[in-house]
Amino acid sequence: MFPALVRPRLTTFITSPRLNAKTGLDLTLASETLQYTGSFKFRGAFNTAAHTAAPHLIAASSGNFGQALAFACQLHGKRCTIVMPHDSAAVKVEAVRDYGAAVDFIDTKVTPRARRVAELLAQYPDAVEAHPSDGELMLAGNESLGAEILAHQPTFDAVVTPVGGGGVVVGLVRAARRIGSTTTILAAEPVIANDVAQSFRAGRRVTLAEEPKTIADGVRVLGLSEANWAETRAGCAGVIEVEELRIAEATRLLFLLANLKAEPTGALALAAVLTAAERFRGQRVCAVVTGGNVDPAVYARILQESGAS
Amino acid sequence: MFPALVRPRLTTFITSPRLNAKTGLDLTLASETLQYTGSFKFRGAFNTAAHTAAPHLIAASSGNFGQALAFACQLHGKRCTIVMPHDSAAVKVEAVRDYGAAVDFIDTKVTPRARRVAELLAQYPDAVEAHPSDGELMLAGNESLGAEILAHQPTFDAVVTPVGGGGVVVGLVRAARRIGSTTTILAAEPVIANDVAQSFRAGRRVTLAEEPKTIADGVRVLGLSEANWAETRAGCAGVIEVEELRIAEATRLLFLLANLKAEPTGALALAAVLTAAERFRGQRVCAVVTGGNVDPAVYARILQESGAS
Repeated sequence: MFPALVRPRLTTFITSPRLNAKTGLDLTLASETLQYTGSFKFRGAFNTAAHTAAPHLIAASSGNFGQALAFACQLHGKRCTIVMPHDSAAVKVEAVRDYGAAVDFIDTKVTPRARRVAELLAQYPDAVEAHPSDGELMLAGNESLGAEILAHQPTFDAVVTPVGGGGVVVGLVRAARRIGSTTTILAAEPVIANDVAQSFRAGRRVTLAEEPKTIADGVRVLGLSEANWAETRAGCAGVIEVEELRIAEATRLLFLLANLKAEPTGALALAAVLTAAERFRGQRVCAVVTGGNVDPAVYARILQESGAS
Repeated sequence: MFPALVRPRLTTFITSPRLNAKTGLDLTLASETLQYTGSFKFRGAFNTAAHTAAPHLIAASSGNFGQALAFACQLHGKRCTIVMPHDSAAVKVEAVRDYGAAVDFIDTKVTPRARRVAELLAQYPDAVEAHPSDGELMLAGNESLGAEILAHQPTFDAVVTPVGGGGVVVGLVRAARRIGSTTTILAAEPVIANDVAQSFRAGRRVTLAEEPKTIADGVRVLGLSEANWAETRAGCAGVIEVEELRIAEATRLLFLLANLKAEPTGALALAAVLTAAERFRGQRVCAVVTGGNVDPAVYARILQESGAS
């Protein structure tokens, strides 16, 4: 069913004449919604499963990384355990199980994810932990996405990508350095989850006190690691902060004008472009759509909200 | 905004490991949802605008062909008038207008579409009519889709496509003949709009008495033309008839397991594969997803229906 020749898919580039007409911009979408498991995370997860000697990988993830790691482990004949909150959406649990991984439920109010992962690592001596945003194997996967975007012809003046754990930003920064790209790299972040914007203003890494309740659930993290912050600071030109309503509007616009099913996190870069449209006038700009996995009830609600679109 | 280098996009091929696991089949989706204007119709419309001398094209269409012809005319500097029922969905009217065409509203209870087109042709002597499913320019566009599918490596044992006016079926049949393909070509049709299935049983062209109310609004036609029926009969191996609930289920499965926003008509081939799954066991089968344009309220309702998925 899953032939050995499965490899991460190339980026899907889409231009929507109606989206360009509506925004007055020359915009290209770089979509990872059709990537295996529905998000860019599969690139790094595939690398991780392919190049880790341990026969059993463990990760805490209620989102895209769990699915990505589960399928990557299935392809490489490895065991996989995903630690998930016991109240995770059924569709997310089902996806991880469909890819053959074991789901380990925790009550996050009682047991922190990190503690449960440590317990499992003690229980399974042949297992190692996989991290969703950090480490050379994950970042090499993200760099492949960055390279495909920066090598696109004609080249982009600017590329905007969501920032959560910083994986895609660092992938773009590394790819730009490797191929000598001069494209401006910008991050998009919810106003209510703006640890990277705060970090740029402070000139040092700032992390949030608690997990922000943004609709963009893929970037509900406390902050970047020091390593990812150092690379972000060095190669990313700045952050565009985005209101929650804009994220929903961008999700609707991708549906209406580009036939693209995106998760709210995946619409974050388009939301940023809409927020700072004047800045991109006359430029060729690329918005990265990082993933498409979204609960159908949540998505239906977003489609039915009345908005600017 | 619309550079002269716009050409129809190549088919997007997608394999979903979860869809394969759920169906027990080796299934590939050939999607035209990301085609310009959101459906395969743009291929033939582009040809039509490119190779018609008249400076003004007129068509009756409340659906994908209207958008496709409007954008094709915009790209080729031609005037375009689309005749639409006055109660067409607002999103459809807006799409045609966004692509620069004039919309001519009719009350279909009072004025048949064909009569209004004839009136407009009399009013504009430099205009010609464009047809959504028939004629060499349209069929050459459909043949390009057929050739991309049949040339896919490894080749498919069977390809299943929705049938409405017969355009995609004839495109596949012609491509198969031209390249010597032995892939089995099958059509998918709603049970309540089964003129082609009836035609196969009768051994002659059967047309419906009135427009069927299937959820797959792209195939709400009375029947094939004699020309398209002759080519369908000669090269298409048969028809799989599909219940309405299956069409909605297939639309949901494309959303859930392939991150694909498809219109119900676009999900018809997958619905047929689900209906006749045993027939495809052990085969490599391709389901054509013809388009993705669907009203957000309709789509939200389909997502929220409880179904077998």
